[in-house]
Amino acid sequence: MKQSAEAAGKQQFNVGICGLGTVGGGTLTLLQSKQDELCRRLGRTLRVTHVASRRRNPDHDYSGVQYSQDVFAVADDPAVDILVEVLGGTEPALSLILRAIENGKHVVTANKALIAVHGNTIFAAARRRGVIVAYESAVAGGIPIIKALREGLAANSIEWLAGIINGTGNFIMTEMAQKGRSFEDVLKEAQALGYAEADPTFDVEGIDAAHKLTILASNAFGIPLSFDKVYTEGISKVTTADVSYAEELGYRIKHLGIARMTAAGIEMRVHPTLISAQKLIANVNGVMNAVVVKGDSAGSTLYYGPGAGAKATASSVVADLIDIVRSYGSGEAVRPASVPALSFASLRDDVPILKIDDIECEYYLRISVRDRIGVMAHISQILMQHNINIEALIQKEPDAAQAGEVIVPVVLLTGKVQESNMNRAIAAIEALPEVVERITRIRVELFDGDGN
Amino acid sequence: MKQSAEAAGKQQFNVGICGLGTVGGGTLTLLQSKQDELCRRLGRTLRVTHVASRRRNPDHDYSGVQYSQDVFAVADDPAVDILVEVLGGTEPALSLILRAIENGKHVVTANKALIAVHGNTIFAAARRRGVIVAYESAVAGGIPIIKALREGLAANSIEWLAGIINGTGNFIMTEMAQKGRSFEDVLKEAQALGYAEADPTFDVEGIDAAHKLTILASNAFGIPLSFDKVYTEGISKVTTADVSYAEELGYRIKHLGIARMTAAGIEMRVHPTLISAQKLIANVNGVMNAVVVKGDSAGSTLYYGPGAGAKATASSVVADLIDIVRSYGSGEAVRPASVPALSFASLRDDVPILKIDDIECEYYLRISVRDRIGVMAHISQILMQHNINIEALIQKEPDAAQAGEVIVPVVLLTGKVQESNMNRAIAAIEALPEVVERITRIRVELFDGDGN
Repeated sequence: MKQSAEAAGKQQFNVGICGLGTVGGGTLTLLQSKQDELCRRLGRTLRVTHVASRRRNPDHDYSGVQYSQDVFAVADDPAVDILVEVLGGTEPALSLILRAIENGKHVVTANKALIAVHGNTIFAAARRRGVIVAYESAVAGGIPIIKALREGLAANSIEWLAGIINGTGNFIMTEMAQKGRSFEDVLKEAQALGYAEADPTFDVEGIDAAHKLTILASNAFGIPLSFDKVYTEGISKVTTADVSYAEELGYRIKHLGIARMTAAGIEMRVHPTLISAQKLIANVNGVMNAVVVKGDSAGSTLYYGPGAGAKATASSVVADLIDIVRSYGSGEAVRPASVPALSFASLRDDVPILKIDDIECEYYLRISVRDRIGVMAHISQILMQHNINIEALIQKEPDAAQAGEVIVPVVLLTGKVQESNMNRAIAAIEALPEVVERITRIRVELFDGDGN
Repeated sequence: MKQSAEAAGKQQFNVGICGLGTVGGGTLTLLQSKQDELCRRLGRTLRVTHVASRRRNPDHDYSGVQYSQDVFAVADDPAVDILVEVLGGTEPALSLILRAIENGKHVVTANKALIAVHGNTIFAAARRRGVIVAYESAVAGGIPIIKALREGLAANSIEWLAGIINGTGNFIMTEMAQKGRSFEDVLKEAQALGYAEADPTFDVEGIDAAHKLTILASNAFGIPLSFDKVYTEGISKVTTADVSYAEELGYRIKHLGIARMTAAGIEMRVHPTLISAQKLIANVNGVMNAVVVKGDSAGSTLYYGPGAGAKATASSVVADLIDIVRSYGSGEAVRPASVPALSFASLRDDVPILKIDDIECEYYLRISVRDRIGVMAHISQILMQHNINIEALIQKEPDAAQAGEVIVPVVLLTGKVQESNMNRAIAAIEALPEVVERITRIRVELFDGDGN
């Protein structure tokens, strides 16, 4: 049982870092290089006293720092007040964090997958033990978005939020939009630049974004983390044709994570999305991240910045460390003050999370048809039968010949409709003899007509 | 001397609101309508128990709330834990806040002018008495920018920040840019819409923005509030011609507050500024606010949202109340934990604040000249003599006749130069016989070539 952090007027806080990869190394460097400035901020000292990693890294300065190969040595080090977990992955990260909590240490983690999937367990353990588990760096790198949701916007009922929360995906979408390059082409470049992993599935299939959206949604609505209920669709099927039709209609395609409180329940979905090119978030380009939050009181606010990288992520790791130090009052606090892990002192588990079939939104459809008289009439009739309005339409000149016949794309934007209804209409249209391939369907987000 | 807030496990926090204008009324309504949700967030109760205003307002619900005409009755009410000051102006606001502090109450204020000018006194008193004075609502309405600077970015040495921090001014600049309207024309509309006061001086001459910049700069750099050292220039002299030349050069004119740490000292300045139309902040339109912060670790992050209005401002007032409640640990805290009022436990007063003559930046110049042979050569020569590069140039066809002679505008962008040197060059150019009126000079901000 740790006593030191509970003594009166504690003046020095010892940090142990587990993992010295990009983020861990960045955190060590930041803390070592800024000791004086951080002391001026805090009036207390924040010092790295123990690091654990598979091997020593000659680039780092280990003077005054204990080195272990075994990360659990840090969790068991009685001198460590706060353990920084930047290993990534599930194990040993989960066991390590639980051991640190058990030993009465606060924890700072950048591990989005772990928090999204095992956060409920971790936070329950931390609550029982009276320690803080902080994870600002798990979402959107250097942007203090967890803090904005949990604290800055705490007076609000959050209506919805929408974010570009995967930098690799946004880099790809930006290159496709600005240079007309194909998905495959840009992905190769992203891998060469080190933005995307050799196995890019987590990024391009939306899993990484779904982890982050899970965390954002729980903080917005005060619900348990529910990663398995996020609808997840990646960007690997978006074509340059779609990007260019979207532009023609005044829209841009972004890979968004969207969470919304509706009368029927909560939407949580990650997918390519058409958004008006006029919106600020439509102009967030390259590897940058941004999150728009609509609160009933604050209105729409937007948070923008770098979503990844050693320095940006270390900025949030160290901000969490500073929060923990500042949470100690100057008197004799039995426990430090703290903000609930998921914004609310008590979570709601009575709000259903909607299946994707049950959401309502507008749609972009691209339909490849044989250029015959009456084809538009057939499509229009099916949409009308399903009570679906056509809000905008592009009919293009023939762009390919297939089996001697001329194939043309029909591109349209629909009014608001329930997804299950849209699916039935799409199935009916695909059954038309004039329709030659699967319809491309991309959801549209109007953000309630909001001005941001 | 207040005891209640210092007891263990305090479960209810009583709020007194002084002033029931736009923000005060919005705060009362928010707290009354969200009591249950706030309790779910806090695990404690936050309740308005006392309000003071010159007259009762029949729109508000006073049940369970004590009403006083005298605001000092709230400061002296032993049942009140936190006093909300939303009177505006210097007195009685200053005396009221000092009285509340003396009585051991925490204070939340939206009073930007008061904090900018008297904040050093107020924070010193609060520190001595061990209470919190919070002021998130004083800057940029619903955007949690103070929190971002003080906490979210606390690991960073802030290099610079730049903000659109006056909604009225941005509304005027946006209308001028998008619709080619004149300053006077838009100002009249802004007054009719209630965005601008009958006396618009505070908004259009930059004083309101200078108050906010003062507060931002102190939080960014950890320096005492220094309102009297901010260089302040309004937008009343910006013409539609300048807006349109700027667009032609790929720039937009925004009224920015800029604070920057340089090797020579700190820049603090509010003035119309050319910024690249590609930047996200250049696309912040209408009454919206946005602040870009460049940290050495997080990089550039941007915060955007509504800068004013009853609900948006109340959102930040109540966020401050929530922070204060959360700052009480669950055990026996002698004093609540707290973040230093201006981000740093100890402030620096050894960093000089630069005079405007000493700053360095790029400039936009519009020079009206008689259309004679050699005039450009004369101008170029003077600039060259002052070591000033011409980065871009527009020479227009004659647009007016004056005293029988043809007058043409010469518009140019310079390279980086010290303002005092620019002043000497401008004086020399104005002394040329071909130059027919005072040169228009607008500063350009390249944001260190940063990508945001």
